[in-house]
Amino acid sequence: MSVFLPKGTRDFLPDQMRNRQQVIDRVRAVFARFGFEPLETPAFERIETLMGKYGDEGDQLIYKILKRGEGGERGESDLALRYDLTVPLARVVAMNRDLRMPFKRCQIQPVWRADRPQKGRFREFWQCDVDIVGTSSPVADAECLAVVVASLAALGFTEYTIRLNDRRILTSLAAAAGAADRELDVLVAIDKLDKIGRDGVTAELRGKGLTEEGIARLWESLAVPDDQQGALDALAGKLDARGQEGVATLRRVLEAASGLGVPLERIRVDPTLARGLGYYTGPVFETEVIEPKVGSISGGGRYDGLVGMFSGQDIPAVGVSLGLERIIAVMEEKGMLPQTATTARALVTVFDDATAGASQRFATQLREAGVPTDLYLGDGKLKAQFKYAHARGYPWLAVIGPDEAAAGTVSLKNLDSGEQATLSNDDAVDRLRGYPAPAR
Amino acid sequence: MSVFLPKGTRDFLPDQMRNRQQVIDRVRAVFARFGFEPLETPAFERIETLMGKYGDEGDQLIYKILKRGEGGERGESDLALRYDLTVPLARVVAMNRDLRMPFKRCQIQPVWRADRPQKGRFREFWQCDVDIVGTSSPVADAECLAVVVASLAALGFTEYTIRLNDRRILTSLAAAAGAADRELDVLVAIDKLDKIGRDGVTAELRGKGLTEEGIARLWESLAVPDDQQGALDALAGKLDARGQEGVATLRRVLEAASGLGVPLERIRVDPTLARGLGYYTGPVFETEVIEPKVGSISGGGRYDGLVGMFSGQDIPAVGVSLGLERIIAVMEEKGMLPQTATTARALVTVFDDATAGASQRFATQLREAGVPTDLYLGDGKLKAQFKYAHARGYPWLAVIGPDEAAAGTVSLKNLDSGEQATLSNDDAVDRLRGYPAPAR
Repeated sequence: MSVFLPKGTRDFLPDQMRNRQQVIDRVRAVFARFGFEPLETPAFERIETLMGKYGDEGDQLIYKILKRGEGGERGESDLALRYDLTVPLARVVAMNRDLRMPFKRCQIQPVWRADRPQKGRFREFWQCDVDIVGTSSPVADAECLAVVVASLAALGFTEYTIRLNDRRILTSLAAAAGAADRELDVLVAIDKLDKIGRDGVTAELRGKGLTEEGIARLWESLAVPDDQQGALDALAGKLDARGQEGVATLRRVLEAASGLGVPLERIRVDPTLARGLGYYTGPVFETEVIEPKVGSISGGGRYDGLVGMFSGQDIPAVGVSLGLERIIAVMEEKGMLPQTATTARALVTVFDDATAGASQRFATQLREAGVPTDLYLGDGKLKAQFKYAHARGYPWLAVIGPDEAAAGTVSLKNLDSGEQATLSNDDAVDRLRGYPAPAR
Repeated sequence: MSVFLPKGTRDFLPDQMRNRQQVIDRVRAVFARFGFEPLETPAFERIETLMGKYGDEGDQLIYKILKRGEGGERGESDLALRYDLTVPLARVVAMNRDLRMPFKRCQIQPVWRADRPQKGRFREFWQCDVDIVGTSSPVADAECLAVVVASLAALGFTEYTIRLNDRRILTSLAAAAGAADRELDVLVAIDKLDKIGRDGVTAELRGKGLTEEGIARLWESLAVPDDQQGALDALAGKLDARGQEGVATLRRVLEAASGLGVPLERIRVDPTLARGLGYYTGPVFETEVIEPKVGSISGGGRYDGLVGMFSGQDIPAVGVSLGLERIIAVMEEKGMLPQTATTARALVTVFDDATAGASQRFATQLREAGVPTDLYLGDGKLKAQFKYAHARGYPWLAVIGPDEAAAGTVSLKNLDSGEQATLSNDDAVDRLRGYPAPAR
């Protein structure tokens, strides 16, 4: 039987898992510092919960689960795998009317998209989301920017840019280009600027029926100075009332972000930031690292209409998602992850059947003292057991031969330093407990 | 739009999530102490990886994912959701020939089964597995028992029984009952003893064509003394060579378990323990709590043939799974989980727009000092903000009004003790940092 993984998925072997766990633990700690409360939702949702929330392109990428029984034989489906963490949150808010608002929640779980697999793009990937539901305060949007900055700082990131825009600015620009009725087409086209370039976007806009004059006006409006205030002033000069609202909101978000410790030089006001998802209504933002080129490592925005699609009552919300896979890809490439280390700190060797009990008891003593300990399970000689410990990078070897077993002692050997000592069981436990944990 | 969760699934709201996270963190720490290395596998596998590994009843419970495109319209499926963590492990071992043996891995992930939902049984539930691949040493089986005992101790469990049997004993009993060719039928029937009682099992065995004499002999063999040695001696007196092997292995497992600190009085040798899964070949074990009756909270055993189904080369393996949902159900019912607490330890209030920046900066200072902090995002008066903090159970309120903002101070109020003080920002940070974390 030949064995494969499904395309676009990965196993995480121990070396990778230790790194992933470390990144998740750090991000989770930052989320907690900001007062976000943890939530988890099921891997699958009822299919109607997901369909129609992500645009046509999104709908096509949703994994559907076959119905049980006859319906399934006809290809019917009633469940679908989670596509992001935002729509499930909206469902949770609609189902739990007694949640105290604003509800600040974090959620760290995998999502699935039947996308074409390519370098750095997977069909199963993890998102680390924070959202604030129930307030339209721009300080909430700023909190999302601040939590991204704090998370990246906790992971050791020093070079990145946050692009910031507002959906209403784009709406206003589309209107100015004579395409108020094709706003989504304009957004989808602009969103591809990084991938297909200016000529590609222009061609797509032509295909959607925009006039040459409208397209020219669009490009002109999208060209803004690099500095925030200059960009906002330039946009304010060109936009209708709706666009002005967007500009005014961004000014308030930036002010609060500054109060929340976000270094403003990290943020670039960028009217070409469109973000593909249909549900954004206000500020949108995306974080990019300069090197390596992995695309955005985080993105989010305000979506004041989505929760209302479920609850029937408009509830404002804003949130941001950190993409675990891309963050780890950058950290790997830049050597920001610690050297691999195994879990155990010591191997307790086994001399023969007569001393096996003593080895088992000492391993147990170490474990009860909190020292991660492996007990040799093979039937190799002591030399083979040395090699085994060495190959796994365990720093300590604890040898219990007949003499040690009789005397209630252990011969410790440090495989890094060569340090060797025969100690009582209790002293040996103390020595190992005091030894620094392997880097992780 | 009415909103539902899929049947048999649950959201974990913050109060539940904090408890779950705590249980998982403790179990993970115990697994690490035993030197198990973390692994994660994708939520879905190729359908042929899963089918045929869990018996007919298991196959029926596997969730299938619809193919993309035309095949899907015809109801075809090429992927399926993970049913347990053992088969994915076997696939990983077969695909990664360079893994060092024995491979001790732990894996904590959800699995999905399209079972009929009922009290305490879900369609999505989490397993916490440890397995040791690549050794047939009975000490490995004992390590699995020891890690269960240590995990339960870390969670505060004091009353439970581990039932222990060996698959070869059951094989031998089936042969003695004249049903060597219907071994699996006998196993499946005996496995239901808890649910359908002795009469039900007898009826099922009759239905499978066993003779009255065979059935009587079976019941006679299954009745053994309560004490381990007595039970093993009784079985040894009745079984063929294959069954004797099982008895001899169990003696060695018990000896090593004792060396590894397992209190032997916890273990009951029970020949009626069948465990439904088809792939077990040697010792099998299951942990039951006496109160409340939730069924088994952990189960495992030796499966020396499964990895070979993928790798073509027999690789022995043994493992055990802790069922997170049942463990948490017991802990909830018995009050073993800590009182709920919110994540944040302080609310920083906001007096007005002029002082908002000072509040934002102080919240940031607290967060950077590691104090989980919420910043008020509404537009309520101070009294409303007090109520907000109180309702959420935050111990501290940090008030910054115009006087405090001008002086660079903060008025702290402890909502539990009533303690009140106006301190410099730095001293206020120190006060809050030193305050005990909320119970979790």
